[in-house]
Amino acid sequence: MSLQEQTNSILPFVEIELQRQIARLDQPRIQPFYEMLTYHMGWTKFGNIQEVTGKRIRPLILLLVTYACGGEWLHAVPAAAAVELVHNFSLVHDDIQDHSFNRHGRSTVWNKYGIPMAINVGDAFFTISNQAVMDLSKIYTPEKVIRAGKILHNTCLDLTCGQYLDMSYQKRNDMSIEDYWPMIEGKTAALLSACTQIGALLAGVDETIIEQYRIFGRNLGLAFQVQDDIIGVWGDEAQTGKSAASDILEGKNSLPILYGISQRGNFAQRWIASTISPEEVAEIAQMLKDEGALDFSQREAIRLTNQASQALQKANPHGEAGAALSELVTKLLGRQS
Amino acid sequence: MSLQEQTNSILPFVEIELQRQIARLDQPRIQPFYEMLTYHMGWTKFGNIQEVTGKRIRPLILLLVTYACGGEWLHAVPAAAAVELVHNFSLVHDDIQDHSFNRHGRSTVWNKYGIPMAINVGDAFFTISNQAVMDLSKIYTPEKVIRAGKILHNTCLDLTCGQYLDMSYQKRNDMSIEDYWPMIEGKTAALLSACTQIGALLAGVDETIIEQYRIFGRNLGLAFQVQDDIIGVWGDEAQTGKSAASDILEGKNSLPILYGISQRGNFAQRWIASTISPEEVAEIAQMLKDEGALDFSQREAIRLTNQASQALQKANPHGEAGAALSELVTKLLGRQS
Repeated sequence: MSLQEQTNSILPFVEIELQRQIARLDQPRIQPFYEMLTYHMGWTKFGNIQEVTGKRIRPLILLLVTYACGGEWLHAVPAAAAVELVHNFSLVHDDIQDHSFNRHGRSTVWNKYGIPMAINVGDAFFTISNQAVMDLSKIYTPEKVIRAGKILHNTCLDLTCGQYLDMSYQKRNDMSIEDYWPMIEGKTAALLSACTQIGALLAGVDETIIEQYRIFGRNLGLAFQVQDDIIGVWGDEAQTGKSAASDILEGKNSLPILYGISQRGNFAQRWIASTISPEEVAEIAQMLKDEGALDFSQREAIRLTNQASQALQKANPHGEAGAALSELVTKLLGRQS
Repeated sequence: MSLQEQTNSILPFVEIELQRQIARLDQPRIQPFYEMLTYHMGWTKFGNIQEVTGKRIRPLILLLVTYACGGEWLHAVPAAAAVELVHNFSLVHDDIQDHSFNRHGRSTVWNKYGIPMAINVGDAFFTISNQAVMDLSKIYTPEKVIRAGKILHNTCLDLTCGQYLDMSYQKRNDMSIEDYWPMIEGKTAALLSACTQIGALLAGVDETIIEQYRIFGRNLGLAFQVQDDIIGVWGDEAQTGKSAASDILEGKNSLPILYGISQRGNFAQRWIASTISPEEVAEIAQMLKDEGALDFSQREAIRLTNQASQALQKANPHGEAGAALSELVTKLLGRQS
């Protein structure tokens, strides 16, 4: 089966498990609360379901790793739901912190229900992710469940550290590229590395293999974020659904922008001088490209992708799931949206 | 040993464990983030440490229950830290949601560092509470750790439900007493019942005893909240550190106020008409008392305290820890602050 076919057979089970987990809140008196979570997940009548649920990349990778390690991926579905719930907890809180009005073309939770409710919705996603991990005890040994729990909890602490760094950078203009990596280690790489580690752990492979999957996930996460940053400056609006170069307008701490600042050239001068207006964005993006930010970022994305691929090779994934993982790497890094 | 003596010998270990757990964030690059958590915990140089750390009631109860069940309370200290961390996660997020400027006489986290940072600080407390539970695996069987984790995660979901109810009530004027109990079940009783359950679980007693401790903790939590509500309307400012009757000014969904509304008398008319000014508070408090709200609330507090005491008796707690628990019940419910 191709990656697409495997995705099509795996993701419905993930979606059902996510619904089952979140249905913990499907109780009398708190229906509007439950609906805030289902709204965020893209299950309610507002908007096209296909477009608003998100790509569920993280649970897909976790289950493909379990399968590629010779494990029964169906058993690992609660873990896949857990990582997606963690991801969504962080999205709901991020959207408040970044003051983002829209996500997937719809109002963000805080924009629709207010900040106090949105904080609580994020907390509920976080809690349910913990509950989903504990549900693994129906199938796996208690030792394995605790190890999976520890991996996920450590990842959540990394997420808060990455989020702190990102927010603390927003008040500064003296950022350098060395400040970038610890931030995205926490914000992006930690959760993907948790997915690949937990996927391998649940399949019951050796420690050395789990370690290769950890390295695979981490580098895939870093490469993924660099690619996201490239799209954020030079991406196509029609494909991304957000205005091209919105990262320039938003002043995001992205790799091309930090590279540009570190060059101390025309871009850096303009960046520090005053806020960029929408009319200037195309010109600024070109300026960044001329100063080498696109070349640099693409080289970094390729370097990290190669490291991910090497680790994946060493992990020696089996059969069609292994091929699907390789295809996924190529696809994620070749994407324009 | 008296309750005071046992408290004095137990709480230093709790404080050290809390410091050890939170020191996970004592790393380069993120020192200011780490300091946001130590600031909230009352460990930094701002303000008098005795006054600002809070009473650590929840970890104390958990460890007294372990001890009263014949268990080694020192082993259970990470669980005690976990429940206190959950409590503090909820305080940090509550303060944002309630727009509270001060706590223990100092600025709240959001008031000092802004809402985005405070959301992240709360998330970090939550994460570290999960990590603290997993640390129990150094001493206890994996099965027991998972059971403790499940109890705590279920409690956290109850907390978010209670928080949702509380926030949803703030827009309404048609509340009744029946709306009160599910709210405080989540906001107060769930965590105290987790403390007593986990305390008994870790001591290794029978299911029937764990169940009695659960009932004890739940009723203690409900009684505690009712007492808090009484203090919030008629308490002494000098002792509470907050202005007397601040709950009337803040329009809190407290038991005396909901009782007053349900009486449809002078208080209810005045309450619905317009916001209460500070000058009117004393008069309104008297009005509530005249309509029977103080009598009613005190009867409820006594009823719940009796239920707590009966469950504690059935649990048959051992020796000095058992006596200390009884003393704690009396003290918590007799308090004026």
